[in-house]
Amino acid sequence: MSTPAPSPASPAPHADLAAQLPALREQYAALQARGLALDLTRGKPSAQQLDLAEPMLALPGEGVHTDATGVDVRNYGGLDGLPQLRQIFAELLDVPVAQLLALGNASLTLMHDAMAYAHLWGVPGSPLPWGREEKVRFICPVPGYDRHFSVCEAFGVEMVTVPMTADGPDAEAVAALVADDPTIKGLWVVPTYANPDGAVVSEAVARRLVSMPTAAPDFRIFWDNAYALHHLTANETKTANVLDLAAEAGNPDRPIMFASTSKISFAGAGVAFLAASPANVGWYKKHLAVQSIGPDKVNQLRHALFFGSAEGVREHMRKHREILAPKFAAVSRVLTERLGDLGIATWTEPQGGYFVSLDVVPGTASRVVELAASAGIALTPAGATFPYGRDPRDANIRLAPSMPPLAEVEEAMQAVATCVLLAAAER
Amino acid sequence: MSTPAPSPASPAPHADLAAQLPALREQYAALQARGLALDLTRGKPSAQQLDLAEPMLALPGEGVHTDATGVDVRNYGGLDGLPQLRQIFAELLDVPVAQLLALGNASLTLMHDAMAYAHLWGVPGSPLPWGREEKVRFICPVPGYDRHFSVCEAFGVEMVTVPMTADGPDAEAVAALVADDPTIKGLWVVPTYANPDGAVVSEAVARRLVSMPTAAPDFRIFWDNAYALHHLTANETKTANVLDLAAEAGNPDRPIMFASTSKISFAGAGVAFLAASPANVGWYKKHLAVQSIGPDKVNQLRHALFFGSAEGVREHMRKHREILAPKFAAVSRVLTERLGDLGIATWTEPQGGYFVSLDVVPGTASRVVELAASAGIALTPAGATFPYGRDPRDANIRLAPSMPPLAEVEEAMQAVATCVLLAAAER
Repeated sequence: MSTPAPSPASPAPHADLAAQLPALREQYAALQARGLALDLTRGKPSAQQLDLAEPMLALPGEGVHTDATGVDVRNYGGLDGLPQLRQIFAELLDVPVAQLLALGNASLTLMHDAMAYAHLWGVPGSPLPWGREEKVRFICPVPGYDRHFSVCEAFGVEMVTVPMTADGPDAEAVAALVADDPTIKGLWVVPTYANPDGAVVSEAVARRLVSMPTAAPDFRIFWDNAYALHHLTANETKTANVLDLAAEAGNPDRPIMFASTSKISFAGAGVAFLAASPANVGWYKKHLAVQSIGPDKVNQLRHALFFGSAEGVREHMRKHREILAPKFAAVSRVLTERLGDLGIATWTEPQGGYFVSLDVVPGTASRVVELAASAGIALTPAGATFPYGRDPRDANIRLAPSMPPLAEVEEAMQAVATCVLLAAAER
Repeated sequence: MSTPAPSPASPAPHADLAAQLPALREQYAALQARGLALDLTRGKPSAQQLDLAEPMLALPGEGVHTDATGVDVRNYGGLDGLPQLRQIFAELLDVPVAQLLALGNASLTLMHDAMAYAHLWGVPGSPLPWGREEKVRFICPVPGYDRHFSVCEAFGVEMVTVPMTADGPDAEAVAALVADDPTIKGLWVVPTYANPDGAVVSEAVARRLVSMPTAAPDFRIFWDNAYALHHLTANETKTANVLDLAAEAGNPDRPIMFASTSKISFAGAGVAFLAASPANVGWYKKHLAVQSIGPDKVNQLRHALFFGSAEGVREHMRKHREILAPKFAAVSRVLTERLGDLGIATWTEPQGGYFVSLDVVPGTASRVVELAASAGIALTPAGATFPYGRDPRDANIRLAPSMPPLAEVEEAMQAVATCVLLAAAER
């Protein structure tokens, strides 16, 4: 994954770092004196990105309150979500529309609720509700997404880690774990532009994950396709069609796909999606029907009218890309210039998504975050990309450059580089 | 509750009903021949009511995306909901704004999730998560709301019934049940214009419910204030302030209040609220934080801008009343004219809410519903107002006159009256 390009502009060879400690301390003091207040913590869209969907704030518009089939979207009903919006996203996510639900404002809620339903009532094929099992474990590829870990932790699900590779989770490590251990009930995967390392699951890895034998008869892959359409280059990667592959492998019920428009339209005011086998969709709807009369169809119509088609969504995402790509380029450029050939850090060059994964000298990640905080740069806490917030090597830092304006991204990254250097020199 | 006014226009004295069977059969055959398709099943607002909020479909409008405190509502965050909307509904629901959360599109979801959190993790004061108890029971006043029963049934919560009175649940019956039985963990209450019988909880009943000793240390009242503002007369009833009363009684954590704008703005595209003690709100938020990054703040801003103030909501509800009151009057008038002095039916004359509760000759409610269905009139299934769908007397039918136009309500009620008469005569 990481491709630290050599840079002629880097300040000093690695061996000299200790000697540079006084100079780096001065540099850091000067940084502190500037009183910055910059934030690279969370993967939030910037105001400029949100502006792209500004016309939605006046949609659907007075007098527009029926969907394409004539249903009054202002009233109750329609547990599956608006057919015309499901049609658009079925094409984008490459799933049958009958197997796609359009629901509330957050895929996190759908993932949490799938876990809750599984604990309370089991999934199709469960010998017992998961909450009645002695122990339930999930495999978490690391580095990974902290909110996946929070869901596991809340439910008392023990987390087992496997490494990420450039092609997604280390499939052989996963296969070895699940083969004999029936307590392992699931696996988290962010298949497209993973949080935080940007990896895209290859078809071979996807195939292995859906076809490997599992000791648990009710093993599930929580396929969090959060960045399915969030390309940073002209290469609009299409992830392996996991539902088809699973069905072909005879394990149609293994994957449950989640996605949303949170980083397409508005974060928090978007629409979330769940796609899975007919049995899984039926299972989810059975429990959802007790919890909800139906999702916000007005918001779904708003989305359908604004985007119009799958191609409308793709067009919209190209505008996001124009805003985001320079920020990611700035991160890469500053890191390359400042740390390029020192051998003290590696980082990812993601082709999509919202994050750069930075590995610093082992044992210094938390020190880097601390130094940055004291200089007014908020970074995601070290360890956040690992279950229980514990990075055993204390090396990984997740950078989120989407939110600040480009100039601030550059400024923040210069500061981060100084902190990485100082922490390394202190060692 | 029921006040069947005597009517000089009623067709025949009770004793003669059997003799009228042939005439009623003819009348029913004529009804069937008309091929009606009318629906009195669910408490849905009519299109005319939804039109009242039509301007919301163009709100907040392009360029309007910050709340009163400057927060960008298009982005992530704000688990408690928009302060300016919470302010409006805190006044309306008579609760401190700090103890009120503005959340998603359905109070049903909040009630379900409160039950789910309690089962998975317990509530403040729980010796065990409810899901780990041998048995959990809830008291359900009957007749009641079928979706409350569905939630209990899904969680395996056994339902114990108490009768409704004109002042709410029979408080002495409730107190007697909870005093010695620690398996009774909760009570459902619809305090204002109850579904289906329109009862309003008196202050005395509310005080009794929040102060009675309970064997369970973690007893909760699910105070579903769905119709808090849904008056059908100029008397805008204010329900007992249950949070204050509970705090005064030394049981601040006992009630959890739920409400929503589903029948104020748009059904399904509204905002739901939860109000409770600081401990309960903290508990709810702790679990919610794992499930959600925050509610749809754009929709909350849309509501705040449209209503402007608590008085704005009250004004809006008066417009609903103008549409609804004639429909309820029609139900009352037809029932009085057709069944008034026959002694075969009683019904409620609600002062608010969405329903009329009709009691027919015991043993005939399901027959009435069946006859109505065969004549093209959809009624809520007999028994739906009782747990497990079983009305032991087979006497109660819930009528929901809000949705059809006035003329159809009259027509449907004439048909219902014919079915009630025929079913009674058949006996």
